[in-house]
Amino acid sequence: MKVLVTGAAGMLGRKFCQELAARGEIAGRKVESLTMVDIVASPPILESPFAVRSVACDLGAPGVGEQLVADHPEIILHTAAVVSGEAEADFDKGYRINVDGTRYLFEAIREANHRPRVIFTSSIAVFGAPFPEIIGDEFFSTPLTSYGTQKAIGELLLADFTRKGFFDGIGIRLPTICVRPGKPNRAASSFFSGIIREPLNGQEAILPVPDTVRHWFASPRSAVRFFFRAAEIDGARVGDRRNLSMPGLSATIGEMIQSLERCAGLERVKLIRREPDPTIMRIVDGWARNLDASRARALGFEAETNFDEIIRAHIEDEGIKL
Amino acid sequence: MKVLVTGAAGMLGRKFCQELAARGEIAGRKVESLTMVDIVASPPILESPFAVRSVACDLGAPGVGEQLVADHPEIILHTAAVVSGEAEADFDKGYRINVDGTRYLFEAIREANHRPRVIFTSSIAVFGAPFPEIIGDEFFSTPLTSYGTQKAIGELLLADFTRKGFFDGIGIRLPTICVRPGKPNRAASSFFSGIIREPLNGQEAILPVPDTVRHWFASPRSAVRFFFRAAEIDGARVGDRRNLSMPGLSATIGEMIQSLERCAGLERVKLIRREPDPTIMRIVDGWARNLDASRARALGFEAETNFDEIIRAHIEDEGIKL
Repeated sequence: MKVLVTGAAGMLGRKFCQELAARGEIAGRKVESLTMVDIVASPPILESPFAVRSVACDLGAPGVGEQLVADHPEIILHTAAVVSGEAEADFDKGYRINVDGTRYLFEAIREANHRPRVIFTSSIAVFGAPFPEIIGDEFFSTPLTSYGTQKAIGELLLADFTRKGFFDGIGIRLPTICVRPGKPNRAASSFFSGIIREPLNGQEAILPVPDTVRHWFASPRSAVRFFFRAAEIDGARVGDRRNLSMPGLSATIGEMIQSLERCAGLERVKLIRREPDPTIMRIVDGWARNLDASRARALGFEAETNFDEIIRAHIEDEGIKL
Repeated sequence: MKVLVTGAAGMLGRKFCQELAARGEIAGRKVESLTMVDIVASPPILESPFAVRSVACDLGAPGVGEQLVADHPEIILHTAAVVSGEAEADFDKGYRINVDGTRYLFEAIREANHRPRVIFTSSIAVFGAPFPEIIGDEFFSTPLTSYGTQKAIGELLLADFTRKGFFDGIGIRLPTICVRPGKPNRAASSFFSGIIREPLNGQEAILPVPDTVRHWFASPRSAVRFFFRAAEIDGARVGDRRNLSMPGLSATIGEMIQSLERCAGLERVKLIRREPDPTIMRIVDGWARNLDASRARALGFEAETNFDEIIRAHIEDEGIKL
């Protein structure tokens, strides 16, 4: 099995590539080679039972996709994207990478004519407020960001290219990934990971919203499992509706903090400093709080069922000493 | 008021331009000029109180949009599209005109920076079976044709460009337009108009589906009224969700035929010949039967409430002598 991963330098792409090297197989078959693609060089995979190639290129440039799929990879995981905040700040760049880049890649796969499994990472940003307390599998996409719009367009392209038989696509709408390892970033959602990650590292974290705020989460470990499940699933079982809201965990900030206390003690919780920020609160108000991911669950996708699991996965995966 | 119409040689574009010439105003303001755009020359408007220009050009070519909006038209009606059957048969052409052409036009309007009202004609083809008996305003778009996919992408672009303040867009999802004047075409939906139009002209019509088939209709006259309403409506009342399912009439073939008998007599009905066609039946099975167009109705969009009105509008508009 040849595997191609775009966005391989990103957090989820990297974790997937590492897990692929550890497993040595995907969808029940041995991996022969992995091509890691990103705008920068992807971090090396230190121990791998298969050949690994890293390609730094711009997916928004015509002709690049053709080269990437020239060896006919059977599994293509397309995670590359300009992220939410940047796509909102730079309208043209967001469309160039997230829409044109995705379409160029899909066209190149169509041209190669080997009909691989294509896994496209979409986002709950395809939903825009107001929505019901629980967003069902048939709720419409009215994104309130350019990023969400671009992901919704990617979903439509994926379904149409699949329907036409050009490839076999599965779109997976990821929950907010928490706990993200690494440093805080400037995304409005950064604090969701920050209030867990920083205290676990003995550092102070700012909480800009009230404890009652509810949101939809899965761990990086679950996201990587979604990718493996999406690679092995029988396309015929999915039918024409190729885009699936992934399972996740609906939790309030209050519940997250209680989990932190259970997993790491009250002293860590005290490192969370409440600094209400009306701007962030307004943004977060437009985000999904809970989803009914029945279709994905029926297809064997699974996520954490309580926040303690999410925190323990982070402690374990990042080797944190408490 | 300067008005630009794409797809002006098409049936609805042409009817809109004629009605505009008859009214001489739109959205409460006098029309100064009309630019009619299509891939071929648009049919001339014989009597018009304002200047009329016809431009034959390819909207799928870069740079064309800039020229069309150079005089800053305040109302832009974008109906140009490769139709359903052709978009399915020619994948590349459909995407080139319906996606790239729409995006080029939207980008040109953004560049011109005069923030006009942009009316985009979408379609119930954005919905794909299975759906509920009545499709609500929040039902998701999972099109089963490339045409439907391309219209759904146009809707997303329209909403995002509007949200960013580049223009003030209203997307209107048209029901199946019936009775279409002119000759039968090769669209699978052609018989819906044919079984009314041909008998009214004293000609035989083929009915390939059972009398129980239910579908969603509005007259060409209603479609033109939708365009005028979309031109005058207050954008602030529409909110962020810029795409609206237009009102229509849900009717069965049986009800349509009863209407024909009431409007034109039993002899005409006898001209309908039943010739079941499993292929057409299978296609029609995937089409929406009924919609809840509450949002559009609340915003003042109106359509026929019984099929007799649709037939009488056709008899009147086409000057048919019974």
